[in-house]
Formats: sequence, C-alpha cells, structure tokens
Amino acid sequence: MTYAEMSTASLRRELSAAKREYTALQDQKLSLNMARGKPSAAQLELALGVLEALKARSEFANSNGDDCRNYGLWDGLPEMKRIFAAMIDVPEEQIILGNNSSLEMMFDVISRGYTHGYNGCKPWCKLDTVKFLCPVPGYDRHFSITEYFGFEMVNIPMNADGPDMDLVESLVAEDDAIKGIWCVPKYSNPSGITYSDEVVRRFAALRPKAKDFKIMWDNAYCVHDLTDTPDRLLPIWDLAEKNGTVDQLMIFASTSKISFPGAGVAALATSDGNIQDIKKHFLTQSIGPDKLNQLRHVLFLHDINGVRALMKGHRAILEPKFTLCEDMLERNVGGLGVATWNKPNGGYFISVNVLPGCAKEVVRLCKEAGVVLTGAGATYPYGKDPEDSNIRLAPTFPPIDELETAMQVMCVSIRLATLEKLLDERKEVYGQTA
Amino acid sequence: MTYAEMSTASLRRELSAAKREYTALQDQKLSLNMARGKPSAAQLELALGVLEALKARSEFANSNGDDCRNYGLWDGLPEMKRIFAAMIDVPEEQIILGNNSSLEMMFDVISRGYTHGYNGCKPWCKLDTVKFLCPVPGYDRHFSITEYFGFEMVNIPMNADGPDMDLVESLVAEDDAIKGIWCVPKYSNPSGITYSDEVVRRFAALRPKAKDFKIMWDNAYCVHDLTDTPDRLLPIWDLAEKNGTVDQLMIFASTSKISFPGAGVAALATSDGNIQDIKKHFLTQSIGPDKLNQLRHVLFLHDINGVRALMKGHRAILEPKFTLCEDMLERNVGGLGVATWNKPNGGYFISVNVLPGCAKEVVRLCKEAGVVLTGAGATYPYGKDPEDSNIRLAPTFPPIDELETAMQVMCVSIRLATLEKLLDERKEVYGQTA
Repeated sequence: MTYAEMSTASLRRELSAAKREYTALQDQKLSLNMARGKPSAAQLELALGVLEALKARSEFANSNGDDCRNYGLWDGLPEMKRIFAAMIDVPEEQIILGNNSSLEMMFDVISRGYTHGYNGCKPWCKLDTVKFLCPVPGYDRHFSITEYFGFEMVNIPMNADGPDMDLVESLVAEDDAIKGIWCVPKYSNPSGITYSDEVVRRFAALRPKAKDFKIMWDNAYCVHDLTDTPDRLLPIWDLAEKNGTVDQLMIFASTSKISFPGAGVAALATSDGNIQDIKKHFLTQSIGPDKLNQLRHVLFLHDINGVRALMKGHRAILEPKFTLCEDMLERNVGGLGVATWNKPNGGYFISVNVLPGCAKEVVRLCKEAGVVLTGAGATYPYGKDPEDSNIRLAPTFPPIDELETAMQVMCVSIRLATLEKLLDERKEVYGQTA
Repeated sequence: MTYAEMSTASLRRELSAAKREYTALQDQKLSLNMARGKPSAAQLELALGVLEALKARSEFANSNGDDCRNYGLWDGLPEMKRIFAAMIDVPEEQIILGNNSSLEMMFDVISRGYTHGYNGCKPWCKLDTVKFLCPVPGYDRHFSITEYFGFEMVNIPMNADGPDMDLVESLVAEDDAIKGIWCVPKYSNPSGITYSDEVVRRFAALRPKAKDFKIMWDNAYCVHDLTDTPDRLLPIWDLAEKNGTVDQLMIFASTSKISFPGAGVAALATSDGNIQDIKKHFLTQSIGPDKLNQLRHVLFLHDINGVRALMKGHRAILEPKFTLCEDMLERNVGGLGVATWNKPNGGYFISVNVLPGCAKEVVRLCKEAGVVLTGAGATYPYGKDPEDSNIRLAPTFPPIDELETAMQVMCVSIRLATLEKLLDERKEVYGQTA
C-alpha cells in the first residue's frame, strides 16, 4: 500500500516508527559522504601501474621522437590520441589533448567563445544576451561554467531517451542568442540515461539559427559500463560529418574515472575549423600539456583493450555498490509511492525523484544524521529544482559497508520527509482538529 | 680597429674573408637550434628522481590527509606551496598552485580580467581600450597573451637596472586604460638584467590611476643563478604589503626550468582579495590541479635546499655554455663596433644588440647556414623591433660542441650583415663608382 492510500492514523504510526529508526541512526554519530562522483580508494589502486610506467630513458621519447620531458607538442602525444579516438569514436586527427581536466577544456571552449567567438561570429561578450540549453537534471559543474559567464540557462526536460528534442530543435531554430547545449550523452549525470539513436541522429542533424552554436558533448562515461547489458551510444561524429555539422560539435572525455581523478588526461575532439581557433588560444595560453603524464598513460594502457580491461576492474568494485543502493531503495521505500529511481547500466550516479517539495528536506535530514548528499537542486541551473524533487546519489566513494549505512539513512529520511509532508497536507485539508 | 674606422678597401677584404668563412660553414649542412629557452637533455637527467618519487601507498596522502590521486584541493598541496614560498619570498598562504605552466596561470589572470574584471572594476572586455606596458626587449609569450586579447601594447625601454620607472610612473598615473605591466624581474628575458632595489621599491609603491592595474611579476628565473656572484632581487611582497599595494601584484614562478619544462609545477602568489576572485574562476574551471605531480616534486625536492642543490647541477651544465658564447662573441666580433651583449649572472638568455637594421639579416644568414635563432623582433610587442637591432641567444639546449659551431655561424653572420650594410651606406654617400 502506498502512503497516499494509507489512513492518517496509519501514517502517524509509520511516522513514529520512522522517527525511531532515524534517531537510532543519528545516535551512531555517522560521518559519511555520498556527495560527489569520486572513485573509491579501491578503484584508485587499479591504476597504480600508471605511476610506475616511466622507468627507462628511452621511454621519454614518443613516436615522433620528441622528448616528452621538454617543451613542445601543444596538442599532445599521438599515442594517447589514438586511445581516446577508440574510446569516443572520433578520428584521432580531430583530437586535442589537455592536462588533467576535461572540465577545464570545456571552460576554455566557453571562455574562448566569450572572448573571441567562433565561426567568424561576434564574441559572446559583445552580445546583450547569450543563452545555453541545459537538459535537467544535469551536471552542476556544467551549469556553473555557463552561470559564471552570465549566460541565461534554459531548462530542457530529459525524457527516457535523452533531452526533449522537439523543444531543442524548435528553440535553436528560432533564437540565435542560444549558443549551445550541455550534454552527457552516455550514462547521463545524474539520470544514467543514454541518448537513443534517434536523439543522437537529431543532434547530428541540428540546424541552429546561431552559426556559432556548440553542442558540448561531454562523453565522460564512454567506457564506464556496470552491467552485462551495457548501453550503446551511437557515434555522433560520423553522422555529423555526413550532415556537415561537425563545426558545432565539441566532444570531451578524460581518464579521470579510468586512472586518477586528479591526475588523468583530458581530451577534446572537434572539427578542423574549431581546432584552428582553439590552437591559437592554446598556444597563447601554454607551451603545452603535461606529456609525461600522457606517456605514463600510454605505457600503462597501451590501447583501447587496456582501457577495457581496466574498466572491468572498476565494474567489479562498483556494480555491487549500485546493486546495493537499488536493492535498499526497493526494500525500504519501494511500493510506498514516495520515490522513483533509475537503474543505470553504467556511469557514476543514481538519480532519485522524491515527491515534489521533499528533496531539500531529505538532504537536510540525511545531513543531520551525518550523511552528506549532493545538495538538493544542484542538478539544476542556478541550483533551483523547480519541483524540489531530484536527489543525486553518488555511491562510488564510500566502502560498501558505509554505503549500506548511508542508504539506511537515506531511505528513512525519504520516509520521514514524505510522511511529514503528507500529514501536513491532510491537516491543511481537514483542519487542525481532524 | 672598428669597422666604422676602416677604409672601404679594408672592409671589402674583410667581407671576402667573412664570405669564405660563411660558405665553409654552410657547406657543413648544419641543423642547429638556439631559438627557445629549452633545457638540454643533460639538464633533464638531473630531475629523473621526480619520476621515481611515488612508490609506496602511504605516499599518496599529503599532510592534510587528502588522497592526492583523487579530486579535491583546488589550490594545491601545502608542502609544494612552502617550497615556492621560499623560492619567491612570499608567504605560503598567498600561493595558489596550478598545473604544469605558469604561462597558463598568467593567461588565466589576464583572461579573468577580460571576462570578469578585478577589484570591482568593469571587465576589460567592456572597455574600448585596454593598454599594457611592455618593457622591451621582453618575453614574446607575454606579448602574445596581451596581443591575443587585443590590448594596445606600449613599449617601455629597459635600462641597466630595469624598466624606465620615470616613464612607467608617469604613464600609469595619468591613463586608467593602462591595466598592467609585464615584468621578468630577475635575469630578465632576454636582457639578463635583474631589477635594482630602487626599481623594485618603485614598483611596490606604484599608484596607478586604474584601480584594477596588475603587475605581472614573472619570477621565472628566481633560483637560476649561473655564477659565483648571483644577482639578488629585493623581495617585492613585503614592500607591497607595507605600502598596501598587494592587490596589484601577481607573482608567478614554476619548476619548468628546475625539474621538467613540460611536466613541472606552476605557482601564482597574490593578495587575499585577488585569491578570492581567482578561486571562483579556478573552481569553476577545474576540479583542481594535478596533485600527484606536486607530490612527486615534494618528495624529490623536499624543501628549498633541495631546489638549491638541483640548481647547482643546472649551473654546472649551463655556465660553460654561457661562458663559451660570451668568449666567442668577444673573440670574433669584440672590438669591431658591430655588437654589444650582456653577461648575465643567471637566467636562460644572452641578449645581443647588433647595429640598427641588421638583426633580421643576421637571423636570416644564420638560418641559411642551418642555425635557427629566435626570430628577430620576437622580443618586442607585435614582433616589431623598431631598431631591428635585438637578437636573443638561447644557449641552453644544444650540446656544447654544437653550440660552438652555432656561435661560429652567429659571429660570422654578424660580421657579414654589418659589412654589407656599412659598404652599402658608403656607396650611397660616395656614389656607385667610389
């Protein structure tokens, strides 16, 4: 029976029980963190070989004969490009390597549009209004970048197969102030959705009014499968090339959740025209990325097969955590009509939707009991979830026993918040004395 | 006897001799490069220990207990800050660490001023004119950044003790479109000059009309001494603090020429107010710098004494190269009145001034004989040396035997270019038949 179907007396009994459970958990003085999509210590151990990869002198030269310890090679090692090319289905000639952060490469792409512009169009800093489309719920750090530059962010609902493309197409066709869209096309952060073939085809065929429109295709979880039935993302590059739309594609990836989050390698893939623009920016900005770290990765990973083998190790650690979260949600709040959640085939997050108006309270209750979740609203531009409904769970970082305790807190907090809300609503309807 | 004092007949004989020498060198089909301030392979060997520093698991935690392999710590490891603090005489609390490039940190400081502004002033992108002072000759990559953002660059002559401070003071006092100045205060690129105490004091006391004026204090060669009589740079931070001018100070350093040019650690030191502005930028741009590389450096260098010991190794390799260049210039073109040059106590460059109008021709002649120098004019904004006189020598990269050959080419090219010019001038004065 769902809470909505229960009598007020039953709800009150349920509330008392939930309060007891919550207090007992509070008494444990927990200090657990499920806020960010951080790999666990066990995952970090998988890539220790990266750190020991550089040994002999001869290894400091890449295939071009460059000494990787010295200056030079603004766009990174060809060997590392090849690995990324296989990961994100893009020809290696289209790839530029950065330092340790694909977010930094995204920031720089936006910053460059702001200061210098793309495709011969006016720099965005010279325009009165710049808008960016933001499929929601989405990744808070994407939204932070466009907020930092003062862009107006437009929420786009996420359907089960990706962003609402009818809306995207109609908006970009009419309004040339719309300069781009944020996308996490595979195992989307936080919803775990992978864009359908149809959605990818429509992105590759997009004809925006703005000539300098950019699809920020953040393929952060391209090889991050967690089940025997992984999602398959249609490669967008080839389609865009056929359609002549590659200029609007900016594809990002990194090894942050393959090797080390703070010390991996990032990549950007885009059209020849954009590469020319970006090259001028990059060459002015720096003498080049850390090639020794790229070389470490090349020596450790070898090729796409090395990446795949490593990702199996990650899956072995992560799959039980995701299963645990899903099972505990099912067991504790399933059938109560208080929450829905996805069961992603990969990625780093579980997205939970509680009843409208309850998300902030759930996150607060968890915090009061020593469990830090991602802030409610963080998955929306400006931190404002209009429904106050979405909560992002990041199950990867805590060890599995801690995760189990954290999920107990989470589940009882969902029950508590919902019960309080339902009982409040009935009070309002039937009056204080009912 | 100088060339100017010689008879035309003597000059002609000298020209024939120089041509023979030049042709003989050309016949060697050389391929030598003295264009950039790159450490040599022998120098890179000195820091191999950096690459082997990370071994045991326990070493992945820094003093704060953070796992350096994971996300976090936007401003870098305290231990590495401490090393930079001692290198550049700034309190460690004022230091932010970056990735592998101090140039990138400079670019970001300028870019941030352009997109968001400093000290509550209008972003520079909203102004019709932004000007930057450029002491000349100077570092081409500095000038490239301000050119990229479309700033108007104003040449400031370099005296023997640093930039012409009378001019700097009078310009910044009057014109609030002037938003900053580029400085390499120690072993300046390319002139090798270290700013005098007086010049440093005047910088620390500068009162520009623009409230968002920034001194870009690129202390790239802070520990890069090459002789027993190293220059001493007055620490500017303490003086600026006493004067209440720290907000206009942006101090940069890196280990690019201490450990590895492509894979070192960069640092920025500035005021609390600027750190707040920059923190917002950095936190939006990236989840943090590569802390493992910082940890490697901490484990290898330990502290400032480790840095100093390492720099003695660099000096042992570099000092003979600088001495060779100076000796060969003296032996081959000394006393001819055709060139002047500095004898720096440190840094990476020797700055040669040939007769006005001869620099491009010298660089061209060198190139024709297989020796690539830094392009003539590169040490000036927009690549335009108004006198066509300055040539930057970068003696660090070639092995010493190659350097000797390259300097032979350089010296004979100076003689050739000057002789052709002097003979041309006499033709003009006395007519074709004289």
